[in-house]
Amino acid sequence: MEPRLFFETGKTGWEDLGGGVSRQIMGYDDRIMLVKVRFEKGAEGAAHKHPHVQNSYVAEGVFEVKIGEQTERLQSGDSFLVPPDAVHGVRCIEAGVLIDVFSPVRQDFIK
Amino acid sequence: MEPRLFFETGKTGWEDLGGGVSRQIMGYDDRIMLVKVRFEKGAEGAAHKHPHVQNSYVAEGVFEVKIGEQTERLQSGDSFLVPPDAVHGVRCIEAGVLIDVFSPVRQDFIK
Repeated sequence: MEPRLFFETGKTGWEDLGGGVSRQIMGYDDRIMLVKVRFEKGAEGAAHKHPHVQNSYVAEGVFEVKIGEQTERLQSGDSFLVPPDAVHGVRCIEAGVLIDVFSPVRQDFIK
Repeated sequence: MEPRLFFETGKTGWEDLGGGVSRQIMGYDDRIMLVKVRFEKGAEGAAHKHPHVQNSYVAEGVFEVKIGEQTERLQSGDSFLVPPDAVHGVRCIEAGVLIDVFSPVRQDFIK
């Protein structure tokens, strides 16, 4: 399969995940996936884990990010790393956007 | 090695790559790496290739992105995927920032 190379946010659908969270799938092949996740103020990404490694960028807003037993408040321009199988969650302090990149691809995100 | 989990942009050093391009290493383990790259208007990321897959997010500005024989103009909020060994380069149309995520880690970026 030839992967798609360019993704325009204005031409990409949003998936409403409920609870003030929505996402756009913004690129993937079998080894990587980039997902844009928008949070309303107060929305949460409940604690969960997955075998994929995750590197995330705070594109907008302020988030409280918990990874394992460590919690930090991050803002636009900051980033975090979630090791494979580490329990992690976020709470949105000021409305914003996370760019979550996974390796390998999150097959569970693809319809 | 326990990887570092949280990265604050204000506490992370910038590496001047010359030609109006600078970067911050904003997280990695062996399987993934997130790098923030700042471009002045008119700066270029010369055409190059690497065996890593790359998923990039346009955090700020406007870029002309060439991957293989395809070229598109992308702006803040858009993204692109560079398959392994695909020749790619960017030209900065309006000063901005790319978030480049690689898998596996770019060992050549680590001092």
